[in-house]
Amino acid sequence: MATITAPKQFSPVEDAENIKRACQGWGTDEGALIAILGHRNATQRKLIRLAYEEIYQEDLIKQLQSELSGDFERAICNWTLDPADRDAVLTNAALQKAVPDYRAIIEIACIRSPEELLAVRRAYRCRYKRSLEEDVASHTMGHIRKLLVAVVSAYRYDRDEFDTQVAHLEADILHEKAQEMAFDHEELLRILSTRSKAQLKATFNRYRDNHGTSITKGLSGDPADAYLAALRTTIRCIRDPRKYYAKVLRNAINTMGTDEDTLSRVIITRAEKDLKDIKELYFKRNNVTLDDALVRHTSGDYKAFLLALLGRDEV
Amino acid sequence: MATITAPKQFSPVEDAENIKRACQGWGTDEGALIAILGHRNATQRKLIRLAYEEIYQEDLIKQLQSELSGDFERAICNWTLDPADRDAVLTNAALQKAVPDYRAIIEIACIRSPEELLAVRRAYRCRYKRSLEEDVASHTMGHIRKLLVAVVSAYRYDRDEFDTQVAHLEADILHEKAQEMAFDHEELLRILSTRSKAQLKATFNRYRDNHGTSITKGLSGDPADAYLAALRTTIRCIRDPRKYYAKVLRNAINTMGTDEDTLSRVIITRAEKDLKDIKELYFKRNNVTLDDALVRHTSGDYKAFLLALLGRDEV
Repeated sequence: MATITAPKQFSPVEDAENIKRACQGWGTDEGALIAILGHRNATQRKLIRLAYEEIYQEDLIKQLQSELSGDFERAICNWTLDPADRDAVLTNAALQKAVPDYRAIIEIACIRSPEELLAVRRAYRCRYKRSLEEDVASHTMGHIRKLLVAVVSAYRYDRDEFDTQVAHLEADILHEKAQEMAFDHEELLRILSTRSKAQLKATFNRYRDNHGTSITKGLSGDPADAYLAALRTTIRCIRDPRKYYAKVLRNAINTMGTDEDTLSRVIITRAEKDLKDIKELYFKRNNVTLDDALVRHTSGDYKAFLLALLGRDEV
Repeated sequence: MATITAPKQFSPVEDAENIKRACQGWGTDEGALIAILGHRNATQRKLIRLAYEEIYQEDLIKQLQSELSGDFERAICNWTLDPADRDAVLTNAALQKAVPDYRAIIEIACIRSPEELLAVRRAYRCRYKRSLEEDVASHTMGHIRKLLVAVVSAYRYDRDEFDTQVAHLEADILHEKAQEMAFDHEELLRILSTRSKAQLKATFNRYRDNHGTSITKGLSGDPADAYLAALRTTIRCIRDPRKYYAKVLRNAINTMGTDEDTLSRVIITRAEKDLKDIKELYFKRNNVTLDDALVRHTSGDYKAFLLALLGRDEV
């Protein structure tokens, strides 16, 4: 379930006017921006952006970028974007880093539905004049490249049915390759990148049944091996996205200095989807609510904005 | 340009009734079926199929399958299908062969536009309950698998602009790998499967300019090597689809006993697109018109149907 709260009735024109007002004069009224944009769903934000463009002949995102700065600016701008376009921006940002953020790319490739992923690929082409897989391939190398290109290019079958024989057979193939430490074997990549999520979940369960351990344990080796970590991320994203996100949040918060990019990414992309469930898992594992953790580890407008997305406005 | 001729005004209901009449009683009136379906464009055929279903509670394709047989049946049924669905059927048929027909798969992956290829992948999932890349990956092995999975999964950028520096750089990479006989090098696959067609055409031209020979010559080795043949097919499909098709037709006709599957595939999939241009190239190279070649190498209703699609009805 979602965490954001949005009014049923709203006026895009009024919102656009109030946003303009918050940006005019001395300083910006960040509280007003949060009160509006932090409480509008994707369709409403799209309508506000259209109204803003129509009234002021100016792109709302550009306006926000020129008024704000830092983590708050990046977060509220990404939040205001269309979901598919936002994922395109996030994957591009992940690729631009000195060491690409493989996790963000895998997350988008494996957690979005096959149709959503196509929409991201379309948005990416439109925005960057290159295909997503083209950029992934030119910014990465070796095994990681093979894995990433395969998962971003996939258009998996997405019904719930699966084949128990295939699950049995392929659980054994995965186990065999893990035993042989042949982590880059093409069969392993084929299975993880082409099978449907329902099929893979059945295969991962069969792995545990047949071999008494989880597949992610089977695929652990050198902790510094980025390719192995990417493989495990792929599996976790497919097996249980909420549990995966709860863990990502935990790491982002517990890291030295807080990893704001990751924190923003997860909260922004899940606030309208399943952030409520992720919050529950977070609390179960950490004995502290995500809201409280954010209050302690973030500050200012950035904190207020994240809390608004979490459905908690009193700061 | 297209070769088929279709009336501007037509009645789907009347056509459906005439088709039903042609299928009733003793024997089937194949001539009537050709006169109708051989002269309707994709939208018209779709409307006829809908009208037929509505009036007779029966799928037109199933009706045709039960009435007809052999090459004619397969050809007219495939012709009657929606283009994306037809390509899904053709790729599946190519995969079911004892040795998969790599050429048919590459053709569809590399000649269709990126959006058309997505539509084929969608139709494939819908029809076979598996993704196209999943089936390609489970029916093939080794280098060929890597190439095929990459080209069917691609969603290339599709504008005309390209980067001359990239063309220069990547022409050299391709040449270097060809010289080293490293035909399966991952850089080679990356370039061929992720770059836009406009970019690749520029790269292939640059290859010829820098190295004085075409890239397909550079990628020739053991003539029995299926992977090398698949690489060259990929390049030909991207470089000049019409020339490629003219050559495929030539081989299909000149082979011992005629390769009807290939003949039908090319004529059916191109009759509404560029078969007129392909015919011209065919004549230039063979000194005989495609129509005349078909008259000599095919027979019966199958011949009459192909000629109707070629825009020539007198047999």
